[in-house]
Amino acid sequence: MPKAEQTRAFIIEKAAPVFNIKGFAGTSLRDLETATGLTKGSIYNNFENKDEVARAVFDFNLSQVSKLINAEMSRYHSAKGQLLAYVKVYGRDMLKYPFPKGGCPVLNTAIESDDTHPELRKKASAAIIEWKDRIVNLVKMGIKSKEFRRSVDAERTALTIVAAIEGAIMVSKVTGRLDYLNVVMKSVKEIIEGLE
Amino acid sequence: MPKAEQTRAFIIEKAAPVFNIKGFAGTSLRDLETATGLTKGSIYNNFENKDEVARAVFDFNLSQVSKLINAEMSRYHSAKGQLLAYVKVYGRDMLKYPFPKGGCPVLNTAIESDDTHPELRKKASAAIIEWKDRIVNLVKMGIKSKEFRRSVDAERTALTIVAAIEGAIMVSKVTGRLDYLNVVMKSVKEIIEGLE
Repeated sequence: MPKAEQTRAFIIEKAAPVFNIKGFAGTSLRDLETATGLTKGSIYNNFENKDEVARAVFDFNLSQVSKLINAEMSRYHSAKGQLLAYVKVYGRDMLKYPFPKGGCPVLNTAIESDDTHPELRKKASAAIIEWKDRIVNLVKMGIKSKEFRRSVDAERTALTIVAAIEGAIMVSKVTGRLDYLNVVMKSVKEIIEGLE
Repeated sequence: MPKAEQTRAFIIEKAAPVFNIKGFAGTSLRDLETATGLTKGSIYNNFENKDEVARAVFDFNLSQVSKLINAEMSRYHSAKGQLLAYVKVYGRDMLKYPFPKGGCPVLNTAIESDDTHPELRKKASAAIIEWKDRIVNLVKMGIKSKEFRRSVDAERTALTIVAAIEGAIMVSKVTGRLDYLNVVMKSVKEIIEGLE
């Protein structure tokens, strides 16, 4: 990697947990200086403004989550096995996985940006739709291979799984009860098993 | 109401949508001045600081949501009917209800505060637990009256309903697809009907 790209990647990596924990509005330039050990000048040599850092950080945090899901999913071939990867990553084993500090970046970014920051909102929205469509495709694959009933509503199943996972992360995090996440993941498991 | 209390109530009402839309970190003193038409001095005559305004605003926004739920719930006597009030308020009829601007205050406050603002986090956490316990009690009431099966797990049912509703609000809001909320509410309806 050329030097400039290395610095850029370094800034993104160090800024990633700060934005995910403090939010976009809550992250100051001083926070970025502290996290990176760089001066304002160095940071803005590599990024146009805080917005550009935030966008790059969102992509970085999202890719960290995708890596965890993909690694777990690649171990299974059936539609059911692949769907259950979500239950594994977000459920009982979540502490085992190096999840981004501050929790789910899609959830954090969605809530903060929805009324205030159109560009970040667009990114969070695209991530949700992509995730939903991925589940829709897995469910349809399962219907095609006769793993799942033909009457299953793929779109509704996908939206319900995404909503339950994101809602459970919120509930679990704000109450400090990690077991709540596991409890809801049992229901998600039942939803997936109920597709058969 | 004495004059001071009136002013306090006025500030809370005007500040409520601002905090719910922009978040705690995103709401500036200038925003509060604009929303209330009052000076910094008048605002801080009535509140110690922005924190105190934020706490009062959270209670106000939460009470607005509770009023909607209670009004719908009071129309039913069965446990199932009362549980379905959530589906009615958050589902198809949500546009009919004067829901707080900026969406669900519990969700917004939970996400912003969980890593950064212990007092607001505590309030959001208490609201979630209270909501969850209310559903637990309704489910237990339904089991007792033989409306619901004895094998139903009240705690898991309650957590799953809360998570699905909150997650669905987030997904619906960030994608701008109100129909997504309705779709997930169909699944919540099925969960409630599946208790029988």
